[in-house]
Amino acid sequence: MKTFFPEVGPVPYEGPDSTQPLAFRHYCADEVVGGKTMREHLRFAVAFWHTFRGTGADPFGGAVYERPWNTASDPMERAEDTLRAAFEFGTKLGAPFYCWHDRDIAPEADTLAETNRRLDRIVALAAQLQRDTGMQLLWGTSNCFSHPRFTHGAATNPDPHVFAYAGAQIRKAMECTHELGGANYVFWGGREGYSSLLNTDLAREQEQLARLLRMAVDYKREIGFQGILLIEPKPKEPTKHQYDFDAASVLGFLRRFGLFDHFKLNIEANHATLAGHSFEHDLEVAAAEGRLGSIDTNRGDPQLGWDTDQFPTDLYSTTAAMLVILRHGGLGQGGVNFDAKVRRGSLDLADLFHAHIGGMDTFARGLKIAHRILSDGVLDAHRQQRYAGWAEGLGQRIMAGAATLPELEAYVLSHGEPQPRSGREEMLENLVNDYLR
Amino acid sequence: MKTFFPEVGPVPYEGPDSTQPLAFRHYCADEVVGGKTMREHLRFAVAFWHTFRGTGADPFGGAVYERPWNTASDPMERAEDTLRAAFEFGTKLGAPFYCWHDRDIAPEADTLAETNRRLDRIVALAAQLQRDTGMQLLWGTSNCFSHPRFTHGAATNPDPHVFAYAGAQIRKAMECTHELGGANYVFWGGREGYSSLLNTDLAREQEQLARLLRMAVDYKREIGFQGILLIEPKPKEPTKHQYDFDAASVLGFLRRFGLFDHFKLNIEANHATLAGHSFEHDLEVAAAEGRLGSIDTNRGDPQLGWDTDQFPTDLYSTTAAMLVILRHGGLGQGGVNFDAKVRRGSLDLADLFHAHIGGMDTFARGLKIAHRILSDGVLDAHRQQRYAGWAEGLGQRIMAGAATLPELEAYVLSHGEPQPRSGREEMLENLVNDYLR
Amino acid sequence: MKTFFPEVGPVPYEGPDSTQPLAFRHYCADEVVGGKTMREHLRFAVAFWHTFRGTGADPFGGAVYERPWNTASDPMERAEDTLRAAFEFGTKLGAPFYCWHDRDIAPEADTLAETNRRLDRIVALAAQLQRDTGMQLLWGTSNCFSHPRFTHGAATNPDPHVFAYAGAQIRKAMECTHELGGANYVFWGGREGYSSLLNTDLAREQEQLARLLRMAVDYKREIGFQGILLIEPKPKEPTKHQYDFDAASVLGFLRRFGLFDHFKLNIEANHATLAGHSFEHDLEVAAAEGRLGSIDTNRGDPQLGWDTDQFPTDLYSTTAAMLVILRHGGLGQGGVNFDAKVRRGSLDLADLFHAHIGGMDTFARGLKIAHRILSDGVLDAHRQQRYAGWAEGLGQRIMAGAATLPELEAYVLSHGEPQPRSGREEMLENLVNDYLR
Amino acid sequence: MKTFFPEVGPVPYEGPDSTQPLAFRHYCADEVVGGKTMREHLRFAVAFWHTFRGTGADPFGGAVYERPWNTASDPMERAEDTLRAAFEFGTKLGAPFYCWHDRDIAPEADTLAETNRRLDRIVALAAQLQRDTGMQLLWGTSNCFSHPRFTHGAATNPDPHVFAYAGAQIRKAMECTHELGGANYVFWGGREGYSSLLNTDLAREQEQLARLLRMAVDYKREIGFQGILLIEPKPKEPTKHQYDFDAASVLGFLRRFGLFDHFKLNIEANHATLAGHSFEHDLEVAAAEGRLGSIDTNRGDPQLGWDTDQFPTDLYSTTAAMLVILRHGGLGQGGVNFDAKVRRGSLDLADLFHAHIGGMDTFARGLKIAHRILSDGVLDAHRQQRYAGWAEGLGQRIMAGAATLPELEAYVLSHGEPQPRSGREEMLENLVNDYLR
Repeated sequence: MKTFFPEVGPVPYEGPDSTQPLAFRHYCADEVVGGKTMREHLRFAVAFWHTFRGTGADPFGGAVYERPWNTASDPMERAEDTLRAAFEFGTKLGAPFYCWHDRDIAPEADTLAETNRRLDRIVALAAQLQRDTGMQLLWGTSNCFSHPRFTHGAATNPDPHVFAYAGAQIRKAMECTHELGGANYVFWGGREGYSSLLNTDLAREQEQLARLLRMAVDYKREIGFQGILLIEPKPKEPTKHQYDFDAASVLGFLRRFGLFDHFKLNIEANHATLAGHSFEHDLEVAAAEGRLGSIDTNRGDPQLGWDTDQFPTDLYSTTAAMLVILRHGGLGQGGVNFDAKVRRGSLDLADLFHAHIGGMDTFARGLKIAHRILSDGVLDAHRQQRYAGWAEGLGQRIMAGAATLPELEAYVLSHGEPQPRSGREEMLENLVNDYLR
Repeated sequence: MKTFFPEVGPVPYEGPDSTQPLAFRHYCADEVVGGKTMREHLRFAVAFWHTFRGTGADPFGGAVYERPWNTASDPMERAEDTLRAAFEFGTKLGAPFYCWHDRDIAPEADTLAETNRRLDRIVALAAQLQRDTGMQLLWGTSNCFSHPRFTHGAATNPDPHVFAYAGAQIRKAMECTHELGGANYVFWGGREGYSSLLNTDLAREQEQLARLLRMAVDYKREIGFQGILLIEPKPKEPTKHQYDFDAASVLGFLRRFGLFDHFKLNIEANHATLAGHSFEHDLEVAAAEGRLGSIDTNRGDPQLGWDTDQFPTDLYSTTAAMLVILRHGGLGQGGVNFDAKVRRGSLDLADLFHAHIGGMDTFARGLKIAHRILSDGVLDAHRQQRYAGWAEGLGQRIMAGAATLPELEAYVLSHGEPQPRSGREEMLENLVNDYLR
Repeated sequence: MKTFFPEVGPVPYEGPDSTQPLAFRHYCADEVVGGKTMREHLRFAVAFWHTFRGTGADPFGGAVYERPWNTASDPMERAEDTLRAAFEFGTKLGAPFYCWHDRDIAPEADTLAETNRRLDRIVALAAQLQRDTGMQLLWGTSNCFSHPRFTHGAATNPDPHVFAYAGAQIRKAMECTHELGGANYVFWGGREGYSSLLNTDLAREQEQLARLLRMAVDYKREIGFQGILLIEPKPKEPTKHQYDFDAASVLGFLRRFGLFDHFKLNIEANHATLAGHSFEHDLEVAAAEGRLGSIDTNRGDPQLGWDTDQFPTDLYSTTAAMLVILRHGGLGQGGVNFDAKVRRGSLDLADLFHAHIGGMDTFARGLKIAHRILSDGVLDAHRQQRYAGWAEGLGQRIMAGAATLPELEAYVLSHGEPQPRSGREEMLENLVNDYLR
Repeated sequence: MKTFFPEVGPVPYEGPDSTQPLAFRHYCADEVVGGKTMREHLRFAVAFWHTFRGTGADPFGGAVYERPWNTASDPMERAEDTLRAAFEFGTKLGAPFYCWHDRDIAPEADTLAETNRRLDRIVALAAQLQRDTGMQLLWGTSNCFSHPRFTHGAATNPDPHVFAYAGAQIRKAMECTHELGGANYVFWGGREGYSSLLNTDLAREQEQLARLLRMAVDYKREIGFQGILLIEPKPKEPTKHQYDFDAASVLGFLRRFGLFDHFKLNIEANHATLAGHSFEHDLEVAAAEGRLGSIDTNRGDPQLGWDTDQFPTDLYSTTAAMLVILRHGGLGQGGVNFDAKVRRGSLDLADLFHAHIGGMDTFARGLKIAHRILSDGVLDAHRQQRYAGWAEGLGQRIMAGAATLPELEAYVLSHGEPQPRSGREEMLENLVNDYLR
């Protein structure tokens, strides 16, 4: 059997003082943090597209990576090699999950029928490799944005024929996900949006999108798929105005079309920042409504206006994310998917390991820091005290829906001015830094 | 009786060839465009805060304007002078409406009781000036963001005492708006949001905000106010994360808390652009759900990351806005409020006229251009043809909820690939330019 | 002889009332504006890369355009077909110029020697087509950013071998430009910059870049090339930090390395806006130092953080640009190159015509508007009056270098406070709108 | 003698395990890091304006802080109280330096003569307090942007009378800085720029600015001031286009006007990020030309488009900054000035201490981390190896100016393709994280 990373063995945990680059310093899968192992908390997944199908291309230059799994002349042999490479990589890395788009794992053929046969063949191999390695599918999804047919959108296309094509792809991708025991199924609508209102009927397109999601809900029930349906917001890129702009927009959309109970969100860090939010903001918005399903972890560049999808190495960000996640009881069936790519100039296979190891260690540190912060209780005690007034008297009446505007006026007329109170933001920032070591 | 603009008379309409700066070239109030006069279409309002209370201050420098209505030593005399100046200005300009925050028209006193008495006195004068001049109140609102008590929010404050204060202010401001026959009442929550999740309970704060809006709905019914309640989205500034981020967020929020039928939106151009949208995008999002209530017109600077509130002079933007508005049947009880300020360096009273004249002319041109585009029908014909597939066959079945994913797959298996079609974006942009003259 | 646009004839000038999409409404090549024809003022060029080599690909999807010149199986036959298509297009459009990168016109072969032979063959064909059609080369340049070898930079690469490769390409491209009588030669350093300081020696890389530019100056003299060497600033994309950030940075760089007299700037609209400037700002910065050489016209999207390279259709922008250009005496040997691409969804050949026609008309209108503004003199009169104080007395002394800080203090002590004066920004914006028709 | 912070004593160093908020965990002034004490490395300064004159006002709300030094009715008594508070604060904090604008320390009077007398009185008190406490002046500067007279600029004003006023203020502020033994004198030109080209003569204004800087150079020599003249770049805010956009722009400007040897740069973190750079980028640009003079430390918000001036708490940023600073031999006469303000909601005096303690600790950690990284040498070894080719053979010839383009071509023709090499960016990012503890 071919190996693609012959020079790398299983990545060991060596602790914080290790100087060996290909080792974990912080992620120790079996270490228990707050009653669960790190493996259970974080449920790391490797993204098939970036890590195994990425070429290093950017808008100003073509492919740069030379991958050993990409050398066969037959496209299906390349696809199988690529799949085997993914399982070898994930296994050596110790990532319990992987994620794919349909077109990542099996190349499109001339007809849908043939494309689906290719998928079947690859899915069979994936099932076997899952059994062999113990790796599992965190989620599957359908790529309804790369092919020219989706240039003007998939579900939101002006042409119902394209809508049908998207539906056909999604049906098959859901079926494959189901077969592989996927824990979730994701919708990311990179072309579900518009470029110019001059040629767009926004209201109609939003209704089309709702239709497709409804069909997916029905089909899920039909096949008995138990995974969670996830929508992944992104504000722009490739399309200028994307309908799934951010968590709040998507939740509003779901309520509007009666779909709220059927979907959760897959929040991506760099998508949140492109929308003008912090990562933790969008996580909190989703979690506050019980709709945080899973996360795509990566990091944007604060000076660049596009999706840079860098690996997460910022401890502030992973700590903030884990604070939200731990407070809301964890990710459930979701996980932490590395929707991240190495830089164009990171040409070597080893760079894929460095990148994932760095990301996993950064998340593991974030988990441990967040857990310590919550366990120590200083932060939460401050917050509880800050809102204490809502647990009694006037505050309680207001939240119970018992107060009226005239009553509030009467209260102020008799009680006068409220007392100013510091928010202590700088002190709390210092507190976080104290834990960061 | 004092006059504050002795050197300016009523601004005449002189047509496009006029070279007189203090005249309209395009806004002719009585000119009929598509069955309504321009006055009825546009319902222009002057914003009390910027135009009469603005000082030219910015974060790096204090007040620069010296206004003749601001010279009296007694604060109530200044308030009355300011109000008279506003009516003189609006009348000379020919703006049929004005808008205010409670604290713009009457200065806050040491106690709420005294502050309310001041408001009563000013509202009485306003009522008289409305009768004298025929000017009307487009909307009133309460300033629940400038006073130090609102530093950590109004409805979303951690202290219910502050919530009560906001409620008390809003009760009074709604009452005053009702007394003056205001057509709408606006909520803009500049401090309804948060700076750091370290000290914030987002879920609780959003529930607080919903409580306040519910009380306002109840109070409106109680007093029989017939105006429309409007929420004005803004993503950030002064607060980092504002809950009313954009139209989609607010509509989602309203649905979530059962408030959807009670509110419409007041969309501001520069707020939309700060949220990463175009002005017309947020107008269309609101209008697509029948929730476009009114607009705050201005213009941001594409290279600056804050609310510059410049007067609207860009014909592309006003044309795009009027296309949305005309297509959706106009602004109803709403209007076009100049939430805009002259630059710090525009020191003279005349600059206030130049700015409003420019804004009104730009909107009037936008109205006429949009009307011609829609009347000629070329744009809409292109759009209709683009979506023609949805009016028949498969498209119709899908929208009727009759199709399923397996049916879509079957369709593709038998019909093959959809036909690529150009979106013709460049041609349509050229078309708009043809009308721009 | 093949034709690639059989359905389009020479694009006629039909005047502003034409409703025929494939006609000019404003660009009339022979019309004289201020003593020169429009053809001489604007010197329009078609960009080979976007218009003939563009595929519609973006970071989330591959090629979508199917071009008739791209069908031959032999790469050199495709290259020749593409070149012929470009001349047919330019001729029908009436663009007097075109521009290329070396790798646009001739595909790279396995060795540099063979690649250069291919270039020679294509350049010979181009020379013949130039003679046949009268079209001329506005500028040539070398693509030192797309090939994998340039991943870490060309002149600024850590490896001198790559520097050598860039130098070799540039030598050949300059020679070809010279042979074809190119009016300018351009340097755009998309990979001349860095991604992370962790692995970058910024000071050294800047010196390397200066070395390459110096060699180009020497080689230009050696071959007797009379064209102007141009540097095109861009702040970011593809590289995070690009050394040629904006006009001011490049001018500083040139002075630092003694290259100031040897280069002018090629200013691109969307590059200026990505740098946080307006287009006209960077034009003015270059022109103020006598270094405005040529322009790449296009338009970015104010809500998107990447180079969208849309065709210029905004009259405000072209008017502002032409105001700068006319004031500084025109573009000289430079021209107006359409570094712009149709949207991914604009699939048809006709869209290429719509786009260029729209851009040319928009620039022609900008030219005529700017000329009228300058001829009427209102704007300049205002400006002259604003700075009048510098032409006499204290102002004159200061500018002559005769005043000292103590003298200035003495002046204030005796003259007191300066008089506040309005900048009249709103009135001047209205004035521009008056001309916009 | 009055005390203003009676509840806070000298802030002790207690080491990383302390849980006492008002103590240093990392900044230990006398601890030696790489041959110098932390005090000598960092030369911390407290900024008078934000910390003692800040009110918490923002564009949507007025002053919120109630400061005990701001209660006297006489303005000069308030000024003296404020100065005493500053020295008490700095002494308790253990900051060896402070910085001021002229108008921070002494309020403007009705005439320049009287204003200068006020300054003299305050400077005398400052001199005494410096002697009493040992605190020193890192730099002084003149506020030539807040007063209405500077609305259209100071040196770049269309009115030479305003230029004279700026010159008079600067003369006096330089004199006062000199008297107080200031180590530097700073120029920040917040209004040196323009809002619209419609009323601006950019070329003339830049020449005016150069004139003023030249006069300052002359005056410095005249009075024998030994401090360093610093220019602080900022791209925008309050003015739209500021001439001192970033380090590269300012260095170019200085070369252009023959001022390069007379000025260094004061780089501010949040100004660099507003310009689209990272903090360390602008530090490196300045340092690479030997012109890094001092730094203004703070932190912006990656989602907000204005100068938030938050206290620096990000270890990645301070580490990156200290890597640049240590590599270039330290800050010399410069220092680390906290140009930062507590959030509007941080109302208490204690918050000022929390903020500065957090900032000092974050910089101290950055210093120690950067020192360890450089001492261990792993990062630099990687960098050296990356550029090794430039120390020999072809690389050496190129840098010596001996190579030509034809020679480079010959090299490639005989040596073929360069070898691809990974930039190892992810591995190096991981490496930095290893030190971050």
